[in-house]
Amino acid sequence: MIAIKAYRGQILYTPALDEMVRLERGYVLVDGAGVVIGTWPHLPEEYRDIEVEDFGDRLLIPAFVDVHIHASQPPIQGLGHTEGSSWFADYCAPVERKYADAPYADAINRDLVRAIWEHGIMSANIMCTVHVDSAKNLFEHYVKTGMAAAIGKMNSDYGAFAPALESTEDSIGGTAAFVEWATGQSDLVQPSVAPEFAPACTAETMAYLGQLAEEQNLIVHSHMCEGDFDNEEVAKRFPEEKLYGKVYEKFGLFGRTPTAMAHCLSCTDEEIAMMADRGVLLAHCPHAILNDPAGGPLLPVRKFLDAGVPVGIGSDVGGSHTFSMTRSMVSAIQISKLAPGYRSLSFAEAFHMATKGGGRLFGKVGSFEPGYRFDALVIDDARWNRHADYSLEERLTRFVYCGDSRDIARRYCAGREVLQPETMPRG
Amino acid sequence: MIAIKAYRGQILYTPALDEMVRLERGYVLVDGAGVVIGTWPHLPEEYRDIEVEDFGDRLLIPAFVDVHIHASQPPIQGLGHTEGSSWFADYCAPVERKYADAPYADAINRDLVRAIWEHGIMSANIMCTVHVDSAKNLFEHYVKTGMAAAIGKMNSDYGAFAPALESTEDSIGGTAAFVEWATGQSDLVQPSVAPEFAPACTAETMAYLGQLAEEQNLIVHSHMCEGDFDNEEVAKRFPEEKLYGKVYEKFGLFGRTPTAMAHCLSCTDEEIAMMADRGVLLAHCPHAILNDPAGGPLLPVRKFLDAGVPVGIGSDVGGSHTFSMTRSMVSAIQISKLAPGYRSLSFAEAFHMATKGGGRLFGKVGSFEPGYRFDALVIDDARWNRHADYSLEERLTRFVYCGDSRDIARRYCAGREVLQPETMPRG
Repeated sequence: MIAIKAYRGQILYTPALDEMVRLERGYVLVDGAGVVIGTWPHLPEEYRDIEVEDFGDRLLIPAFVDVHIHASQPPIQGLGHTEGSSWFADYCAPVERKYADAPYADAINRDLVRAIWEHGIMSANIMCTVHVDSAKNLFEHYVKTGMAAAIGKMNSDYGAFAPALESTEDSIGGTAAFVEWATGQSDLVQPSVAPEFAPACTAETMAYLGQLAEEQNLIVHSHMCEGDFDNEEVAKRFPEEKLYGKVYEKFGLFGRTPTAMAHCLSCTDEEIAMMADRGVLLAHCPHAILNDPAGGPLLPVRKFLDAGVPVGIGSDVGGSHTFSMTRSMVSAIQISKLAPGYRSLSFAEAFHMATKGGGRLFGKVGSFEPGYRFDALVIDDARWNRHADYSLEERLTRFVYCGDSRDIARRYCAGREVLQPETMPRG
Repeated sequence: MIAIKAYRGQILYTPALDEMVRLERGYVLVDGAGVVIGTWPHLPEEYRDIEVEDFGDRLLIPAFVDVHIHASQPPIQGLGHTEGSSWFADYCAPVERKYADAPYADAINRDLVRAIWEHGIMSANIMCTVHVDSAKNLFEHYVKTGMAAAIGKMNSDYGAFAPALESTEDSIGGTAAFVEWATGQSDLVQPSVAPEFAPACTAETMAYLGQLAEEQNLIVHSHMCEGDFDNEEVAKRFPEEKLYGKVYEKFGLFGRTPTAMAHCLSCTDEEIAMMADRGVLLAHCPHAILNDPAGGPLLPVRKFLDAGVPVGIGSDVGGSHTFSMTRSMVSAIQISKLAPGYRSLSFAEAFHMATKGGGRLFGKVGSFEPGYRFDALVIDDARWNRHADYSLEERLTRFVYCGDSRDIARRYCAGREVLQPETMPRG
């Protein structure tokens, strides 16, 4: 018999976009496979003999889900964000190319899993570069951590937007090799397909990726509508489809399997409706908007939510300076108030985006509802929970606004505690 | 003879708004009174026998200056920032009133000095509440820390905007008592005059404060032009002056002594020109803008800089969720890119605002130029300075964007190391 276990604490989670469930000193019951049985305010009679792990007054929340990370870019976090910077040419492209170097990529990857762990991101959607061996290296590190991730070798075999242009043969062959190698290695770490974006891929490669994704039910991870430049390129190269969404759809890359599209800053109403219809996830990256050297257009995220598009939060390191999902949540709320004409985000909505919203990319992830994978964080908010009688939601709000990774006391993925990946230099 | 001492490290500071001085493994020479003699790339021959404190590869930068803090508001950090919240009524006013309670205020004040220390703010401009004893308590704690501050008992004896309305007699009497009590207690901690803002003060009180400030050369600390509501109130109550700046000027509160005005979101061109002419400091509080439940107007900070207004950064806790000056700098840069029609802030400009810009309120503070008080931070950025050959400015940029108080290894004020004020619970 597989043991059922109860976790007790100050429980908060968001089963729906604007619905925060609070259970004071409640229980989450988890089966031996790491799947949530349910939450209860009191331990049900039939479970009175099971093991209870009691976190006391600490907060117990679903772990964070980051739906858009570039593996090669932590070395440029924080750089190239002021007016006049050539972020892509001076920062992004060089580190993407450098990631080809195996010892260097190994060092970056070790720090990457450590940073993702530090920030309580138990599920991460990660785009590597075009270099297969570096992606394999990350995959190998990841499998050892006990955290969940979708990891993709990037494809960019066309045009001027590829930071490291590859041949179509290498692009297709590399992805085929990576996916074959990675498949079945882990229950928690899976290969994805990750075309950089339509302007940087040939039709041949995109068609292959779409087919592969469908055959093997792989997550699709890409970018869409970052600005006018890529929309124009798409319209030029694909005059029949004209729209980004239609190009991806033509190649089977738009929601046939779980799909995350980063940015979507300039999506048309038609594309937004397509995203909603196909369940394509918007990977909302508030820091990429705020760090755009020119000051990005403020995504009207409400428009996507109102249309029924699922929305998760992407740190978008290195478009972002931080892996902190709490800082991304704060920025998402802040910029939502600056988009004129749209109701801004509530705290519960931002929290939902950072947990269950993004979690849907990985299946039943990001909530404590029955059937969900028990991915959780224990938050020791003692330093923020002083001198006042805060409600549970206020405590969570203060952790998100004021706190940081120091307040994350414990991390769980699929019912197992995840310890710091390995000891590396501070940070 | 008073000993001269040299501090060696990777030195960066901003003598002018957009000018970053970098000295690789350079020296700052400081006299026995804690005043900077100058900086050198190599130790000058005549000083070859002095003591050198070598910070190795660590960054050595001027300490941060926070020009706008509300002492009573840390308990509401992070709360009331989403659309529809009544921040003033539900969060601000209750904690302002609660600060009357001595044991409570003592607890808040202990945490406050600890938080300000943690974030490397060696000079802080702090507005307390109307309650004299609580302001005295903070002053007493502060004197023990070795950090610099201007601390003011707030005045609010008029109208509906006072979180804790006092009588005019109490307002004037309280400030008189506080300033008399505080004067001469410390070289580093000074009393200020702190009218809440013109709409919340009687003419009698403002006249008294202006006179007192001038007689004793006290810093003036207030708010100005937060929005339409207070502009309208000023125009109604002072039909002759009409403008905020003119009201403050009428009462001697507009630059006769060092003056910091928080927010200034809706200043007219005339008021901006007056600020420049009188040397009134804009306390720019980017998080107060971003946290406004309604989404504040984006201050065109460039307009103030172009007009010659001195600008410093205020955390504005509790309008802000954090005392982190680095996070405020990042937000200042980010929102400056969103104000249409104005050139955004460079990194050096934001750094200047957080150091020398705000430092002018306290005299020669915030730089390593000769004659400046040696207030400094040693930054151990090892976790951000990996896997690439970063320039000194890139290292500083990464600390500011990616780092946090964990990276502040040592703190100096007036030439003396400042240790953690006292041991309190974590955080």
